[in-house]
Amino acid sequence: MSDASFHQSPLLGGPAPVFDVEATDGNARAGKLRLARGTIETPIFMPVGTVGSVKMMDPTELNDVGAQIILGNTYHLYLRPGKEVLEHAGGLHRWMGWDKPMLTDSGGFQFFSLAHLAKFGEDGVRFKSHIDGSHHHFTPESVMAMQAAIGSDIRMVLDHVLALPASREALEDAMRRSTRWALRCLDAPRESGAAVFAILQGGTDHALRARHRDDLCGHDFDGFAIGGLSVGEPPEVMYEVLNRLAPTMPQHKPRYLMGVGTPRDIVRAIAEGVDMFDCVMPTRNARNGTVFTRDGRLNLRNAQHRLSERALDDECTCYACRTFSRGYIHHLVRSKESLGPRLLSVHNLHYYLDLVREARAAIQSGVFSQWQQATEARWDAASESS
Amino acid sequence: MSDASFHQSPLLGGPAPVFDVEATDGNARAGKLRLARGTIETPIFMPVGTVGSVKMMDPTELNDVGAQIILGNTYHLYLRPGKEVLEHAGGLHRWMGWDKPMLTDSGGFQFFSLAHLAKFGEDGVRFKSHIDGSHHHFTPESVMAMQAAIGSDIRMVLDHVLALPASREALEDAMRRSTRWALRCLDAPRESGAAVFAILQGGTDHALRARHRDDLCGHDFDGFAIGGLSVGEPPEVMYEVLNRLAPTMPQHKPRYLMGVGTPRDIVRAIAEGVDMFDCVMPTRNARNGTVFTRDGRLNLRNAQHRLSERALDDECTCYACRTFSRGYIHHLVRSKESLGPRLLSVHNLHYYLDLVREARAAIQSGVFSQWQQATEARWDAASESS
Repeated sequence: MSDASFHQSPLLGGPAPVFDVEATDGNARAGKLRLARGTIETPIFMPVGTVGSVKMMDPTELNDVGAQIILGNTYHLYLRPGKEVLEHAGGLHRWMGWDKPMLTDSGGFQFFSLAHLAKFGEDGVRFKSHIDGSHHHFTPESVMAMQAAIGSDIRMVLDHVLALPASREALEDAMRRSTRWALRCLDAPRESGAAVFAILQGGTDHALRARHRDDLCGHDFDGFAIGGLSVGEPPEVMYEVLNRLAPTMPQHKPRYLMGVGTPRDIVRAIAEGVDMFDCVMPTRNARNGTVFTRDGRLNLRNAQHRLSERALDDECTCYACRTFSRGYIHHLVRSKESLGPRLLSVHNLHYYLDLVREARAAIQSGVFSQWQQATEARWDAASESS
Repeated sequence: MSDASFHQSPLLGGPAPVFDVEATDGNARAGKLRLARGTIETPIFMPVGTVGSVKMMDPTELNDVGAQIILGNTYHLYLRPGKEVLEHAGGLHRWMGWDKPMLTDSGGFQFFSLAHLAKFGEDGVRFKSHIDGSHHHFTPESVMAMQAAIGSDIRMVLDHVLALPASREALEDAMRRSTRWALRCLDAPRESGAAVFAILQGGTDHALRARHRDDLCGHDFDGFAIGGLSVGEPPEVMYEVLNRLAPTMPQHKPRYLMGVGTPRDIVRAIAEGVDMFDCVMPTRNARNGTVFTRDGRLNLRNAQHRLSERALDDECTCYACRTFSRGYIHHLVRSKESLGPRLLSVHNLHYYLDLVREARAAIQSGVFSQWQQATEARWDAASESS
């Protein structure tokens, strides 16, 4: 993949993305991000559709749970179905029946999590497919061309993510390279209307975080992401990084915390001024039988639910909660009927999207910290009683 | 399970089921079967929901594909979730969110297909659970009580099905026992409005088939099923049994061919006067990547579909055909995304229900044989060209 030409995806075009902060409450922000395919109300959670489908969900269900934007993984889509197929199809949106905005990552995180398969150089990354072992090469330019073939609305720069612990010298080298690559991505051709977000690295070192912020935030990116968190460090360490970093990022650009996290992580990050989130947790946990509720987590495999006539969450309005009891879903999960994890996925995504909607409303009403306190208190009470 | 008491399921009650033949064309019939939970237009296909869920489908999708009645398996529902859970839930309908009619089989076929686990006596069947090896006992009366706990609208009698080849003496013994059991089922308590269907056995022996028909058809069952076909015999042998048997069954009762079959089997059986069908084929084949179309079968795993922009079936109006290309669904199937087999299930069930709707319209218009010829000619042309 070294072709820097790009595919003109349908529906893109028009003015550059615009982000407006409409209300603040402490460091928390409620905003609107206007993109070619629609406007996103922030804070927002983005369901993850790794290979062109949010697992177990069809586009109608994604709309029903309130998804405003979804995420696709460039590394996975490059390997399967591949650039040729996506260009032939006219981009991923039409192919998968999704007409709202989409964000694509760059593959940087996959090279980190599949590190034994990747070799970094100044030009880019050479790697072996985790599917068939075939050899490939990503450059900042080819990653942008691949994201153009997908036709995503928001495109992430290629970055060099290191596994921790790493020496300070190695971390600084990777950061400097990530900066050079980010600027090459910014210079790569793209259609009008397509946004490019930079990714701030620096691990859990506050000085490095500040440096990478200063290196990147003067450039004309459409938004800034915080990468390299929630990779094994304790939650409190992540919260401390967010507390120092997020409020100092550009005020008039969206802030995106990549790959995070639990409902509590999201509420804490919103409090620090983060606007956008993605995570596989709601869909992955659903496939393992677990749901998130206003009163904490439930494992639907547990025999205690066998005769339950309660909804997963009494206050939830998702299709699963409107239609089925815990007892029925317990039966589906135990019987390995795929409708079980599907209903749990519907609920979990609806719950995550309710959570960010409630946070947004609380920020707009100026009661965010009271809302945060009450929300976390219910989770705490549930975990103490269980 | 020896409790002959029964659970009063919600929504049942009222007058006994009524079947009206509205039009005939040759031996083919278009009718209406009025049940407590709704009226079924025949010929009809019934999607199979083995353990309380039609695999991969939610109730909204079942309505969207045009399902008027679904099937549940008493043997499976007895083992999981069990009678206690279903009684506590007030029946299967409310629990699974399905408010239209439901037919339940009796377990007879499962004892045939899991024969090594079952021992027949005059009182009933002793068997081991295929899930955990636990010991159980079904009698004609307990099977009717279990179907009452499920709250199904149409209940099948317990029958003794033999694996073929069997001696004529063994076949006759099993038939006579099936008759005695059928009459015990007819005498068992049930709510008003609940229908009981007898099952005609006799393998592929025309004289035995005629005898079992005569043994059972004088009794006051609400409908008559043909069992013991499509268990390995060549299609032409089954068609010959249907040709001799179906037209001689009671004119004013619905005729149900159990567990059959391919689209061609269904069209052939409709021509002989069969009204009702069920089969796992549309959903099972979908999970293996295969769909039925007006131009024959397609295997979506095949690389030939990689760049296809065509719908699965250009004339189909199902959600999958309205929304997605063969190329996208091929990608989902190859990537093991569960949305793939789910979309194929939606299509296959919609196709089967379109087929019986088209057959019904052709019968009502008096052009059934022309329709049958044209429908089969397209399948033949597709299989010759592939």
